[in-house]
Amino acid sequence: MSRTPLIGVLGGMGPLATVDFLHKVVASTPATCDQDHVPLLVWNVPQIPDRQKALAGTGEAPLPAMLHGIERLNAGGATRIAIPCNTAHLWGDALAGASAAPLIHIVDAAIAAVERRHGQEGPIGIVATRGTLAAGLYQERLAARGLPFLINTDDELDALFTPGCYAIKQNRLDHGGSLLESAARQLVRRGARTLILACTEVPVGLAHVRSDLLPISVDPTQALADACVRYWLEARTGEAAGREELTG
Amino acid sequence: MSRTPLIGVLGGMGPLATVDFLHKVVASTPATCDQDHVPLLVWNVPQIPDRQKALAGTGEAPLPAMLHGIERLNAGGATRIAIPCNTAHLWGDALAGASAAPLIHIVDAAIAAVERRHGQEGPIGIVATRGTLAAGLYQERLAARGLPFLINTDDELDALFTPGCYAIKQNRLDHGGSLLESAARQLVRRGARTLILACTEVPVGLAHVRSDLLPISVDPTQALADACVRYWLEARTGEAAGREELTG
Repeated sequence: MSRTPLIGVLGGMGPLATVDFLHKVVASTPATCDQDHVPLLVWNVPQIPDRQKALAGTGEAPLPAMLHGIERLNAGGATRIAIPCNTAHLWGDALAGASAAPLIHIVDAAIAAVERRHGQEGPIGIVATRGTLAAGLYQERLAARGLPFLINTDDELDALFTPGCYAIKQNRLDHGGSLLESAARQLVRRGARTLILACTEVPVGLAHVRSDLLPISVDPTQALADACVRYWLEARTGEAAGREELTG
Repeated sequence: MSRTPLIGVLGGMGPLATVDFLHKVVASTPATCDQDHVPLLVWNVPQIPDRQKALAGTGEAPLPAMLHGIERLNAGGATRIAIPCNTAHLWGDALAGASAAPLIHIVDAAIAAVERRHGQEGPIGIVATRGTLAAGLYQERLAARGLPFLINTDDELDALFTPGCYAIKQNRLDHGGSLLESAARQLVRRGARTLILACTEVPVGLAHVRSDLLPISVDPTQALADACVRYWLEARTGEAAGREELTG
């Protein structure tokens, strides 16, 4: 007998981005009542050491705390794991390897969403942390598909992206949203026709300032939410079929 | 040595109300970085049988599923339990009795917020499910403090409140928000000067329609979030003091 579907969410990176993800899951679920909604177990414990600082060599390693969360989610009965943080996926292989429940990968979900929407429209701007960019998390997958891309310069990361990202974590949404939008706009000025908001603080910030860049943006948080909803709808159907077989 | 503070959230009643609660916790936390935010373990499994139907005698009992969630949250290390659903607090004693982690009670938090804001301003309108009203969850505590109150009639519950509440659970926020606001407005027409939005779907609906009733409303979801933030700030200070003793 299969286990009851339950999506384990390794959250807290950051906390508001996790809430944004959960909201997108609920809002994207076709539901006629509470019971139709996606079952979620959320480890939203933001005391995981800072990922950006660890990658810059100025902070504690986050992997042990992330592995602890993965262990708790599996112990709690998770049948899939979702991590609404792009940078955390730099440790994705280690996390997936330690988890009995398979990982629904945010970058795979986002790239699939890019492919669905992208024609021959010029380069794709990647709005992401220095760590995500340095590891080539999105660039490698885009290059493999022959899709051109642009990224922010070091100066833009220092002046716009990084302080914008931290401002969101401090609940300073006007300031953070405005900085993140400026970082994204630099990419548009250099020719980007589509943006990937490849850090989960970015869609939160751009939505808060009602950015006119949202219509040309792909939101990996939404793509991950959509993938989770699809898993639940399929697993639930499978479950119902299994019950019919048992009782039929 | 005390356990690491962790707030266990028994959610899913409904799912959007849980997200609203989590958002209020994050937005109400003084934070300079991710790590300052409240650690939360969220059992957001909305397959708990419908509370309103159970109380009306037309549905399965929700207590076993709620107790299962409470057990999972305790097993996951929760040091306090928060339940962002007023109606679920009709089973509050059974849930608290089965939980090693004490319950932060939404009604107590809300009544404290009412007392902080309420002068001699006329009756308080209680916007709540039929089950919450029938059990006197809010009325008893208000009466004990000598505070007058008003509630919706059976007809208003049938025509406005109940369909409004279920519409929110179906992601029909315009429709649900408008119905819930109409239910609240009936109380204002009969003399209510303050409202308690005593069902967690109501603040979601009223915020969505940008209701002009919000400034005269007390939001139990916000009161519960504030109580959770206070617990975390105090527990964290105690933890830091404990560490200093150990290392001092």
